[in-house]
Order: sequence, then C-alpha cells, then structure tokens
Amino acid sequence: MNAAGEGLDRVFTALADPGRRAMIDRLAQGPASASELARPLTLALPSAMKHLAVLEASGMVSSQKAGRVRTYRLAPGAFAALEAWVAKRKQAWSAQFDLLDAYLAQTKSGDDQ
Amino acid sequence: MNAAGEGLDRVFTALADPGRRAMIDRLAQGPASASELARPLTLALPSAMKHLAVLEASGMVSSQKAGRVRTYRLAPGAFAALEAWVAKRKQAWSAQFDLLDAYLAQTKSGDDQ
Repeated sequence: MNAAGEGLDRVFTALADPGRRAMIDRLAQGPASASELARPLTLALPSAMKHLAVLEASGMVSSQKAGRVRTYRLAPGAFAALEAWVAKRKQAWSAQFDLLDAYLAQTKSGDDQ
Repeated sequence: MNAAGEGLDRVFTALADPGRRAMIDRLAQGPASASELARPLTLALPSAMKHLAVLEASGMVSSQKAGRVRTYRLAPGAFAALEAWVAKRKQAWSAQFDLLDAYLAQTKSGDDQ
C-alpha cells in the first residue's frame, strides 16, 4: 500500500472511535489542552493522551507545547485527505450514471424513429 | 451512543481497511459480483464476503440476488453520512475563524483611533 493509502487508513481508523470524533468536535470549536478534551468524555488523562496520539498520527490534529501545557488544535486541511477520497469516488460514480443517461437517451431516440 | 453515532462507527470502520476501500473504488465504476470484487484483490471468496458484509452493514453498499448471482452496488447516498459529519465540523471550525477575524478587525480599528 502506498503512503496515501496508509494515511487514509490512519484517518478512517482515527474517526471510527466515537470518543475521538468527540475530540474533533471539541477542537472544531477551538484549541484545547488534553485535560480539557478528556473532561467532557470522562476519560482518564492517559486514555485521552492515547486517543490524541492516534489523532495526531492521522494528521488531523496537531499540538504545541508552551511551558508545561500542550495545546491541541485541528491541523490545517484536517479533512482534506478524507474529502479528496470521497470526491474522487463520487466523480467516478456520477460518470457511470452519465454514461447510463447517454445510453438511455440513445436507446430512446432509437425508439422514436 | 445514538444511532447516528453507531452508523458513523460502521462507516469509518468499513473505510479503515484498504481492501474495502478498493471494493468501493470498483463499485463506483458499476455493480459487480463478489467474485469480480475478490479477483483484483487476490482475496479468497470467503474473505471477500466478510468484507462485503462489513460494507453492507455500514449502509454504503447494497446487494440483490438474481438467480444464483448476488450483485453488489454502491447504495444511494453512500457517502451522505460521512459528508454530513465532515461538513458540520468544517462549519464549526470556520465559524471559529470568523469570530477571530471579527475580533482582530475590532482590535485593529481600536489601534487606528
């Protein structure tokens, strides 16, 4: 599998967990620390840190340490890989319907003659 | 977790596997049987059937049996749940930047006085 495929594996695996999706929801509202992200999910800090590591590995979340506090935020283009993947499949899919339409139109114009 | 959350779990889990994503790719080109989907992935038929069951449970793929052949296709709105989830997060995220812009504009107009 190529690098893009591995990146998509990480993105989709990260989003398959409801707790990690809730963290993305929270980060869409603005940057937050690990404990701010852990609290509403009633997660222990070590569990929250594990989920955040999965999100960082996916490239959707980045973090920066200032003094003793590490702040997490959505990465620029957090959803770009996911959106590009969907867009490409939808394009192929709708091209298929366009071909079907063209075929049906041709068949119909044949009937009319 | 609510029903929508469980649905998203199934969608993202289904897409976390490169073989299942390749099946989606193939189905975006048009309907196919399990053996047609298995062949390019060099999967044994029972493995392919397991992956197809995961894709059907996610709601992205549907199948119909005609005689002895079951045909798989992308379900109408296959990507709708995924796209709706991303759109809502991006909306919240860009609203946050709009607020920041408004704040910076206000700060700047304060500086100008």
